[in-house]
Amino acid sequence: MDKPVNAIPCADEITEAHHRIRPFINRTPVLTSHSLNACFGGEVYFKCENFQKVGAFKARGATNAIMQLDDALLSHGVATHSSGNHAQALSWAASLRKTPAFIVMPLNSSTVKVQAVKEYGGKITFCEPTLEARESTLKKLLEETSATEIHPYNNYHIICGQATTALELLEEIPALDLVFAPVGGGGLLSGTALSIHYFSPETKVIAVEPEQANDAYLSFIQRRFIPSVNPDTIADGLRTSLGSLTYPIILSHVHDILTVSEKAIIYAMRVIWERMKILIEPSSAVPLAALFERKIDIKNKRTGIILSGGNVDLDHLPWIK
Amino acid sequence: MDKPVNAIPCADEITEAHHRIRPFINRTPVLTSHSLNACFGGEVYFKCENFQKVGAFKARGATNAIMQLDDALLSHGVATHSSGNHAQALSWAASLRKTPAFIVMPLNSSTVKVQAVKEYGGKITFCEPTLEARESTLKKLLEETSATEIHPYNNYHIICGQATTALELLEEIPALDLVFAPVGGGGLLSGTALSIHYFSPETKVIAVEPEQANDAYLSFIQRRFIPSVNPDTIADGLRTSLGSLTYPIILSHVHDILTVSEKAIIYAMRVIWERMKILIEPSSAVPLAALFERKIDIKNKRTGIILSGGNVDLDHLPWIK
Repeated sequence: MDKPVNAIPCADEITEAHHRIRPFINRTPVLTSHSLNACFGGEVYFKCENFQKVGAFKARGATNAIMQLDDALLSHGVATHSSGNHAQALSWAASLRKTPAFIVMPLNSSTVKVQAVKEYGGKITFCEPTLEARESTLKKLLEETSATEIHPYNNYHIICGQATTALELLEEIPALDLVFAPVGGGGLLSGTALSIHYFSPETKVIAVEPEQANDAYLSFIQRRFIPSVNPDTIADGLRTSLGSLTYPIILSHVHDILTVSEKAIIYAMRVIWERMKILIEPSSAVPLAALFERKIDIKNKRTGIILSGGNVDLDHLPWIK
Repeated sequence: MDKPVNAIPCADEITEAHHRIRPFINRTPVLTSHSLNACFGGEVYFKCENFQKVGAFKARGATNAIMQLDDALLSHGVATHSSGNHAQALSWAASLRKTPAFIVMPLNSSTVKVQAVKEYGGKITFCEPTLEARESTLKKLLEETSATEIHPYNNYHIICGQATTALELLEEIPALDLVFAPVGGGGLLSGTALSIHYFSPETKVIAVEPEQANDAYLSFIQRRFIPSVNPDTIADGLRTSLGSLTYPIILSHVHDILTVSEKAIIYAMRVIWERMKILIEPSSAVPLAALFERKIDIKNKRTGIILSGGNVDLDHLPWIK
């Protein structure tokens, strides 16, 4: 199933991915808020992937990857290391094909997330909470099981799957001036940038990243890959480094990367909860935080914002000490 | 504008109310949850009034009442006593007609709610936190201002407005076996019961009330009016007594009233947040709590549940001590 490492999905592959996964995923709604439109003096359209299967856009990529495995590969299952939404998404998508999902999770993963992976049927192997331990444990697991590795973002089919988010947004809300997405490993961002490039080339793609995990920002402005080192942000989905597949797409097709403070992320998250009555996780609030921090002016513009997910630990909310 | 005290709105008056308020209110979505359907073995349709203007169904009744005032009455404004969503709804609806809303609020009202009323332009008069003080303060205010009193639920036009919630639900999801609504003063419940009676007479209407504020339940089974005395429930929208207009409609057209524990209310509220990624207030969780407590079996049935509102104090969530 693998393409050459430097392959970039073409437009047809994104629309094919959409046809492939559409029977399984939710067509998530695009919501608006009068008070936020008034606040920014423009029209803001929120693509609500918090309402996606497993509560995050990750269901798209995982489904696209798993639906392309043949029976021989499926008989061995799939595997990844992830402490977050990809672990849940892969477990859920694997269950659609009745194949096992082997998930390597660090020992310090939150109970909520471990429980969620178990509920979706994922088979968990715990490891020490270091990247080395995660990778070596996964390597061993892959050798033992002959499972197919499905990387959370540095995977061609994952990128195509995540690209369908922006594709749906454009179908519903054409002629957007700007589209905002958060950036962690870059799966959602590179997919978004490709969909905009192919299907709405006049639209600008703006990525937003926490200041305290600004590796994508640095990699973007310095035009050389800089890994994420000790990121300390509440936006737990955005702590990873870019990948060898996602980084070149981002360099070519993203117009700007902005960074935001932790305070603005928490503020934006709470505003979405209070004004729109929907749950989003901190990573989802990062693009809106850039608007509140006036990092960019969207007055009189049509702006799309991808709300990436809604998996929050309700026992620990960032504004309650 | 007043009808005789024992008048019951007819079908045409409900559809007229809908036409009247439709340009101003939100057409709220009907959402479903695969996991909840699987849990109960039936189809459950949630009518999401948490996405209504001001975050609660109360916007419907308030708009219907205010849109029927003539210019002479409008010149004096409207008034009510309320510590909750009706205060916000009346303030908001009054602003649509550019007329003042005089709101009597008890001194112990939450800062969040006082702030919300102010934001919608309501003019607040504080009073001691007793029913007597609320009523006497409102009486004095009405004399001083000649404003029109708009009672939160014991008002013909309010009932017609709230009835449009079930009307929309039926338009979208016909042939429901059951419709659940919470009951406090009975505005939403009596309106719901009338809409079901006129537009889907095969559907059964089930009200649900906190055990610790069970005056409607007692009034229903004993067939005599029993007021709410010292209700102690987290469902702050359901602490009031039934009214002289709402009670007879409920006696005639509601099929059953169930009660639920505080624990089940909090559990149901959290399940909706976690599974559906939407914010609802405790009062909204009361009907679902009855399903979790197995007070009624909805297996193989088509069930509508009205989620009444989503105004929550995010600094004080019931599951965080």
